[in-house]
Parts: sequence; structure tokens; C-alpha cells
Amino acid sequence: VTGQLDVGELVDRARAGQPRAVSRLLSLVEDDHPRLREVVRALTPYTGNAQVIGLTGPPGVGKSTSTSMLLAALRAQGKRVGVLAIDPSSPFTGSLATRGHLGGLSWSTPQSVRVLDAAGFDVVLIETVGVGQSEVDIVRLADTVLVLLAPGAGDGVQAVKAGVLEIADVFVVNKADRDGAETTVRELKNMIALSRRELRGRRWRQPIVRTVAAQNQGAEEVLQALDEHRAWLESEGELASRRQIRARTEVEAIALRELRSRLADLGGGEALEMLTKRVVDRELDPFTAADELIRTLRR
Amino acid sequence: VTGQLDVGELVDRARAGQPRAVSRLLSLVEDDHPRLREVVRALTPYTGNAQVIGLTGPPGVGKSTSTSMLLAALRAQGKRVGVLAIDPSSPFTGSLATRGHLGGLSWSTPQSVRVLDAAGFDVVLIETVGVGQSEVDIVRLADTVLVLLAPGAGDGVQAVKAGVLEIADVFVVNKADRDGAETTVRELKNMIALSRRELRGRRWRQPIVRTVAAQNQGAEEVLQALDEHRAWLESEGELASRRQIRARTEVEAIALRELRSRLADLGGGEALEMLTKRVVDRELDPFTAADELIRTLRR
Repeated sequence: VTGQLDVGELVDRARAGQPRAVSRLLSLVEDDHPRLREVVRALTPYTGNAQVIGLTGPPGVGKSTSTSMLLAALRAQGKRVGVLAIDPSSPFTGSLATRGHLGGLSWSTPQSVRVLDAAGFDVVLIETVGVGQSEVDIVRLADTVLVLLAPGAGDGVQAVKAGVLEIADVFVVNKADRDGAETTVRELKNMIALSRRELRGRRWRQPIVRTVAAQNQGAEEVLQALDEHRAWLESEGELASRRQIRARTEVEAIALRELRSRLADLGGGEALEMLTKRVVDRELDPFTAADELIRTLRR
Repeated sequence: VTGQLDVGELVDRARAGQPRAVSRLLSLVEDDHPRLREVVRALTPYTGNAQVIGLTGPPGVGKSTSTSMLLAALRAQGKRVGVLAIDPSSPFTGSLATRGHLGGLSWSTPQSVRVLDAAGFDVVLIETVGVGQSEVDIVRLADTVLVLLAPGAGDGVQAVKAGVLEIADVFVVNKADRDGAETTVRELKNMIALSRRELRGRRWRQPIVRTVAAQNQGAEEVLQALDEHRAWLESEGELASRRQIRARTEVEAIALRELRSRLADLGGGEALEMLTKRVVDRELDPFTAADELIRTLRR
């Protein structure tokens, strides 16, 4: 089957709106297919148009209900929307090497975004299942990051780590009809005031939007906040800067992954094992062993 | 102060049992001190003696209470025990580069283990706060991994991802006096049977120990399971194999970290930015950019 794969044709079909072609491309990039490079190269010229939105938050705040609500609202505006649900903790049985959590970057997420972008989706929604470091690293690749909270979910605002506050462009307090919602909003305002997040030039003031996603309330307000953030990104040159960061993270991750693979292969895979043996035997410290490994690589 | 740091003397004082010297060494390796290499080199000859135990499990199972119980029980046996509490999700405000989550390996944990090992601690207990991929990667560096569960904590056994089952050497069902404890044990037995974990040669059968850590019940049984696993590790050559893997992971992480730093520095830091710019402009795909970056490195 691999031999019969016509990457150019597949990309053409995806761009023509064929869902099966899009799915095929997504699984090709997720599976780290031997022809991944070729696929990415074929997609590249058609990318750069999609608005990439990240959505994260602690368990129990209603992330998937909110994703559904936004999806419907964006589609009602006539937009094509693709959703990527990311759970970095799920591939527990998979190997780290192939997932390539290099520097916290999930290997396949930027490639999956690229597939949907090239296929002509106007909006790519990245929804994370949890809100650990890996999720933070993933959603920070988005143009705009929505952080969801809800009254009574986990330990509330206190449970939101500082890094999550920093990556948020828009806060959404979901389940806003419940007791405690206004407490959540007030605590959030206090934390925002404390975090004094400075962006280059004019500071973006993170808005707080109230929603009841299960009753489809607040979608318009979220879309408005997204539009305002998008306009701010463009007016401040921040969008280009974010995309530069996203591309740098990706190039760096690919290069490191390639270097890791070369390190493992050195001397037919023997170099790393022999150096490691000397570390176990305490003949070498691990830094000297790493230096030696790099010297072998550069020969 | 850095200029006055006498690494050899500090290591001598730590080996003589001075807690302040141990703390100082721990913060030196955690802070990625400029003289980290020197510190690690000075520690290396004295390492390899400590028994390294990892302890992980979902939130709410009583990990810190269990750590306290084990600590007391091991000390009652006359052992010196050091505890490292690891929360990979906590440095949300820190930079990824310095934490160096390369391939999921927390940068400082193996160095911290090395400090306690060289300082003459008989046992090093690594306790993780959560149980995500990073935590799994950390505890798998241990000689023996304890996985804690409890009835009613989270979604019980179902919530335990396959990878956690795979890394467990000993299961501890804590809060065993509660309703549902036997259900947890039974579910666990079923999952173990399903996972059919094969280790090289004879298979280690993961025991299930019941504890009530808050009432100090079951410590002896856990220690016995630890001893049995230790004996098995040694009889099967598995201990040497685990330590080889641990050292390999560490050498590889150090080498990749060094390479990452060199990639970022190439051309006075300009090479990566310029290649990235061409990716943003869709002149280059990220794989070709990464190839180019590696070629620059090897020049």
C-alpha cells in the first residue's frame, strides 16, 4: 500500500474537501510514516491561512462541551472548522521515541495542524484533555489560547498553575449559572492583576467570558473575544511573532529528533551502549560520556 | 560565592553526613549550576550503592502518607533514607530549556539521586506528585517501582493507564480498610493477568500489598515485597540492566541538551532564526530546515 501512495494526489483530494483524504493525511503524520517528510513538504505551500485556537483547562470544566459549542457557532458563521483532541498522557503504551516529546513538544500536533490548514480549514481547534506541562506546550502553539475554568471544578482558580495563566489569551468561566461562578471570576481577576503579564509593546488584557456550554450560552461572547484577540495579534505584529516561535519549536524538535536517532545509531548502535557501560561502572561521569558521544557524531 | 565553592570539600562533607552539604549539592544540581559537571564528576566515584525506589499513583491514593510510613519503617531498620518529591508539572513558570524535559527525562532527578547516593544514603525514595508521562519516565529510573492505588480515588483501576501497569514492580492498595478495597484488588488482578507483562527470562509476578498508611498498617509487607523484588533483580541480572538503561537515558539526555544548546547558538543564534523565518514564509518545509540546521552544526 505504501508503494502506491500518491502524496500529491492525496493532498489535492484533501484540498478539494474530501474527508477521507484528510483523515488519511492525519493518520500518516500521526503514525510517523516513512514518507512523512514528503507529505509535509507537499502540504507546506498551502499552509498559513488557518486560525489556530487552543483550548485547555483542568478536568471537569466542560472542555469538550465547550468545544462542541464553539464548533457549532463557528460553523454557523460559515467557517470550516477542524478539531484536534490531544491527550499527551494517553500514549502510555507507545514509545517515547516515536512520539518525540522533545522539549515537551508533541511530535504530531504541529503536523496535524498543518494537514488541516493545508486542507483549507478556516479554524483549527486544538483541545487538550488535561492541563499538564505537555498540554501547555501544545496549546502555546496556537494563535489564541482559551483557558476554561468552572466553579467547583477541582480546586478552582487556585489549582490553575501560573504557567496556565501566562498562556491564556482569553479566560472562559463555564457553568456560569452555578453557585460560586462569581467567586471564580473574582479570584481570576485577582490572579490576572497579580500576574501582570507583559507582552511586547501594548499589553493584551485577558478578557473573562462567562458561558454555560451545556445550554449553549455565551458562544457569541467567546467568538467576539477571539476576534478581538485576533485583531490585536495582527495590529501588534504578535501573530507573526507567535508563528515564528511555533516554527522554531518545530524545526528544533525535528532536528533534535534526528540527532537523537543518529546518536542511537552511532557505531551501529554500539557507541552509546559502550559509553553507558563505562558510566555504570563509574569510569566516566555522564557529562564526559555525552561529550564523547557528540564528538563521535561530528566525526 | 561561586568562586569560593570547593566542590571536593562539599562532597567530603556530604559523605561525612552533614545535611547542609547534602542540601547545597542538591540545589547545585537542581539549579543547573555552571559547575554542575564538576559536581557530578566529583560525586560519580561514590555512587552505585543506594537502592532507588520510585513511588507513584493517581491523585488521592495517599502517596505522601505512604512515603512517610515507608520512611519510618526503613529508618527503623537502621537505614539512611533520602526522599525526592518530584512534580514535573510544577515548574510552570520555569523555562523548559533549563528543566530539560528531553525525551521526558526530568533533567535534575538523576543528578539528585546521584547526590543522595554519593552521600551514603542506603535508600533513595522518589515520590511523584502526579502520574502523567513525565512521572512515569522519572520513576522508571528507579530499581523498584511502587504503584499506589486506593478504592474510590479517581476512577480507580480503570484510570490507571497501561503504561503505569507496565512500570509497576509492586502494587500497593492503600486505604485497604475502606469499602471497595477488595474490588480494587480484584480489578487489579484482572488487569495484571491481561497485561501479561514479560520480562527477560523468568517473569516477575507483581505482588499486590494492602496498606492503611494513615494508620501505619502494612509497612512490613511493603518492605518485604521490596526485598523480594530486589533479590529477584539481582538474581536475574535485571538490576544491572536497569542501571544500564538509566545511565543510557541520562547520557542521551545530556548529549541532546548540549546539542540543543549548540543548535540555538549556531551563527551567533542567527542560523535557527533565519531557517525558521523561511519556514514561516513557506519557502522551506520544517524537515528541510532541520536538515540544514544539522549540516551547519557539523561544519
